[in-house]
Amino acid sequence: MDYKEFLKHGERLDDLQINNLQVIQNPAGFCFSEDAVLLANFVKIKAGERVCDLGTGCGVIAILLSAKTQAKEIVGVEIQADIADMAARSVKLNDLENRVNILNLPMQEAHLTLGREGFDAVAANPPFFQMTNDKGQMTNNDIGFVNSESIAKQEIYITLDEVATAAARLLRFRGRFYLIHRADRLADVFRALNAHDLEPKVLRFCGAGKTPDRILVEAVKGGKPGLRVQMTNDKGQMTSKVN
Amino acid sequence: MDYKEFLKHGERLDDLQINNLQVIQNPAGFCFSEDAVLLANFVKIKAGERVCDLGTGCGVIAILLSAKTQAKEIVGVEIQADIADMAARSVKLNDLENRVNILNLPMQEAHLTLGREGFDAVAANPPFFQMTNDKGQMTNNDIGFVNSESIAKQEIYITLDEVATAAARLLRFRGRFYLIHRADRLADVFRALNAHDLEPKVLRFCGAGKTPDRILVEAVKGGKPGLRVQMTNDKGQMTSKVN
Repeated sequence: MDYKEFLKHGERLDDLQINNLQVIQNPAGFCFSEDAVLLANFVKIKAGERVCDLGTGCGVIAILLSAKTQAKEIVGVEIQADIADMAARSVKLNDLENRVNILNLPMQEAHLTLGREGFDAVAANPPFFQMTNDKGQMTNNDIGFVNSESIAKQEIYITLDEVATAAARLLRFRGRFYLIHRADRLADVFRALNAHDLEPKVLRFCGAGKTPDRILVEAVKGGKPGLRVQMTNDKGQMTSKVN
Repeated sequence: MDYKEFLKHGERLDDLQINNLQVIQNPAGFCFSEDAVLLANFVKIKAGERVCDLGTGCGVIAILLSAKTQAKEIVGVEIQADIADMAARSVKLNDLENRVNILNLPMQEAHLTLGREGFDAVAANPPFFQMTNDKGQMTNNDIGFVNSESIAKQEIYITLDEVATAAARLLRFRGRFYLIHRADRLADVFRALNAHDLEPKVLRFCGAGKTPDRILVEAVKGGKPGLRVQMTNDKGQMTSKVN
């Protein structure tokens, strides 16, 4: 296959190191990071399940999950039209159109198209940084900096609470929400999950070096309290379980 | 000094390994555990501050804080009359009556005696185990098992939410709440803190062996979001900071 027909100016193809899968990225915009790979490795999907990736970006998590799981259907939701188009072309060039769908939608409205409570699992690698301080004031006044990278990294179009709202709407009762975030926002993450009846069941600390700074959380809609805490080393290997 | 005059039948004196302090305990009842020592080492108190230890038991945390800090006043609140009496005698035998006060009160009513918002810091080593399941049903029907040990370990007289309520009432704005709990109840702990505007600022994982199962939390009343996560090894030494 001539992959060039799938590429637009400035884009490149990156090998995902699994099943010969490749993903289109634009180095001038936001490229996927280790966080996406960490999240895709954390997600547990059973055969035949329906999965939604909220804020799929270039589609890397949706495409990785197609290889790593036996999900029946994987839907990636992306608000940015050009990025969603890039993700859809990656799905096509990997010949995954029968299992992976990319929708160009704000995740706040995803349930209007996808329906409520129809998914077994939802994944999200949301923006990590808040745009407002605790008084609700904007902390980044320079709105001129908004681009595909800042949209992916800062809470410009979506807040953490809105991500949890979207996940709770899409998930069936007892469905699982998989989230990666910064460790210093753990309290915010648990607050948002709690507000939407998403009970944290697994909390894994990870990241590079001796100071891991990422958390992976599995929360269950309507789940019972009781948390397992896991630690990983800088290679992502499990070192100790807290319980 | 003849310490025997302070001891009742069945009680013993234990050396706290600091400043020649000793504490009276009754081996037939509940004796303080490593958790109390972990919490006392975690608490940070500035010179001249007022501190309250909720559920002080034999008074070990209040007495340790008198040695480890320059707190002006330390109040220990204990619901069980015989245990509060034992703690008060330990205060007396250590000659700490000018700085440490033991009150025999349910912590739900502590603010009625101590006033609201008058403390710089509150510490609590509360019961770790819930008495009810998520449907609100009792999980321990054998109420005959209630004794000083079960009261200290199970949420018989006080729930986690009531502990947070009591702490929030006693603390001044920006006052600190120091709590030890089981790691598997982290989501419950953050839920209770959040419900009373106590913002988690430090989360430390600790415990014995390769599977630490305790969390220490410092929360600030009216604090801004932003959490530091810390790990310790089985000797209680800091191994890595998550951030």
